[in-house]
Amino acid sequence: MSVLYERVALIGLGLIAGSMSLAMRRAGLAGEIVGTARSAETRAVAREIGLVDRVTETIPEAVEGADLVVLAVPVGAMGEVAAAMSAHLKPGATVTDVGSVKRAVIEAVAPHIPEGVHFVPAHPIAGTEHSGPRSGFAELFRNRWCLIVPLEGTDPAAVARLRALWEGMGSRVDEMDAAHHDLVLAVTSHAPHLIAYTMVGVADDLRRVTDSEVIKYSAAGFRDFTRIAASDPTMWRDVFLTNKDATLEILGRFTEELFALQRAIRLGDGQHLFDYFTRTREIRRGIIEAGQDTAAPDFGRGAVTS
Amino acid sequence: MSVLYERVALIGLGLIAGSMSLAMRRAGLAGEIVGTARSAETRAVAREIGLVDRVTETIPEAVEGADLVVLAVPVGAMGEVAAAMSAHLKPGATVTDVGSVKRAVIEAVAPHIPEGVHFVPAHPIAGTEHSGPRSGFAELFRNRWCLIVPLEGTDPAAVARLRALWEGMGSRVDEMDAAHHDLVLAVTSHAPHLIAYTMVGVADDLRRVTDSEVIKYSAAGFRDFTRIAASDPTMWRDVFLTNKDATLEILGRFTEELFALQRAIRLGDGQHLFDYFTRTREIRRGIIEAGQDTAAPDFGRGAVTS
Repeated sequence: MSVLYERVALIGLGLIAGSMSLAMRRAGLAGEIVGTARSAETRAVAREIGLVDRVTETIPEAVEGADLVVLAVPVGAMGEVAAAMSAHLKPGATVTDVGSVKRAVIEAVAPHIPEGVHFVPAHPIAGTEHSGPRSGFAELFRNRWCLIVPLEGTDPAAVARLRALWEGMGSRVDEMDAAHHDLVLAVTSHAPHLIAYTMVGVADDLRRVTDSEVIKYSAAGFRDFTRIAASDPTMWRDVFLTNKDATLEILGRFTEELFALQRAIRLGDGQHLFDYFTRTREIRRGIIEAGQDTAAPDFGRGAVTS
Repeated sequence: MSVLYERVALIGLGLIAGSMSLAMRRAGLAGEIVGTARSAETRAVAREIGLVDRVTETIPEAVEGADLVVLAVPVGAMGEVAAAMSAHLKPGATVTDVGSVKRAVIEAVAPHIPEGVHFVPAHPIAGTEHSGPRSGFAELFRNRWCLIVPLEGTDPAAVARLRALWEGMGSRVDEMDAAHHDLVLAVTSHAPHLIAYTMVGVADDLRRVTDSEVIKYSAAGFRDFTRIAASDPTMWRDVFLTNKDATLEILGRFTEELFALQRAIRLGDGQHLFDYFTRTREIRRGIIEAGQDTAAPDFGRGAVTS
């Protein structure tokens, strides 16, 4: 593949930025990859493991001369970072982000984008429960979707180049508007995370079942919840605070449905339960057919090969 | 390893029974393995793939002369199966089951156990979302816990032999009483399953987000819910109907906690969210340390090796 951006600046050096650096490097998509992070420890680790070509101490140094600037910090920190970089952006550069919420990021970042710089919000739907500069891997985006959320009037060439970057890192790319993005993600990600966090918290609180029992017998379904509920606390706090309306709407629907199923259990209505569970099984089949997961029966048992 | 039971009869030939047959065979734990299932199609598949040594048409034929009888049918069918086998059991034989609920199974089965036959309820905490005679694999129980729930006055030698069987199939074994078992499983399995079913149902209902969007973008957390929610509908209907009290108690606690987190989101209380999410992350670390899951970062991406 050919170089798409001569210089890329990564602001934030966690799971997503680290994986982007490794994926861009492997595919030869960037000339030089520069990175910075707020924490001195993160910068030190990134230098030690050679995560990017050059680590800078400050945001202005990182974005100087960059053709692409990637904001890869928690959603709640986007506005502050945008303010810090604003005066140092190269004319004609593209600014993008990888935040899980799009309306709030656009509100926070767009006012800081100078005339002549392109702002193209994006969201790679990929992740693990790990975080930090050591957690990235080049395969993270392979066959995963990246949603690009172009603003009205954005230069189509800037959007096309960013799309090519994500495709070059292995992603499939879709475009949609910010409000729809936030609703879709509330369903597929934000509400499920809050629910998993809640169930893990309940298990921890229940004094009659010991923590050791919960942990030992987790293979029975609980394990998948703990995986979700181990995700980065700062990132998720910001997601819920900034995608408040859509998340609360979905949680409201969820609570209604849960009450209906609890009622069926209480009344012994086996047919209602059976029909419900049969319907949900179909969705799983669709996900396997769509290639977003494997049907291998012993998932999570051993090392994973790709 | 040496043969523990000269003849084993499997009643039901789904995921658990099939995996037991393959695991017992590999470790040489049983002389002959006989099996039967209610459905003619299941029996035909079991014969075709050689899942057991001999498939019988009826339950009386299967249990005749068996030293160990394993009830591996949905919890709601246990009583009926026990009644059908009762008069045909060999004196001195052991009857066990693999049901996910223990109080209800004991109530349904114990009255049908003749004098001189041992009844030792058990529950292997292992499974996948797949079901049927083709879904079994010998590794299913490796490093997973099996809970044995001995009744008062049971011959310790019969319990010890069943324990040795499960250990021979790769399990770790614990003993506890039936009421505690049902509470522990309500937390680690039954409530999480109902919650996952509910969330998958909500996603399906939501007309503003298409099914195709839900499926495409499922990697964002929803995927783990669909895996849980794809489990066998009959089995799970029976679990909820027979472990009603413990499941409803845990769901009540869950709903309380979820309301508290929804309130924190609505009020913008980031500290509450951050503290909660930090606490749940610790539980995940405990599960990885306890060996019940892997920390490999690209879970579910490719084929799994063991």
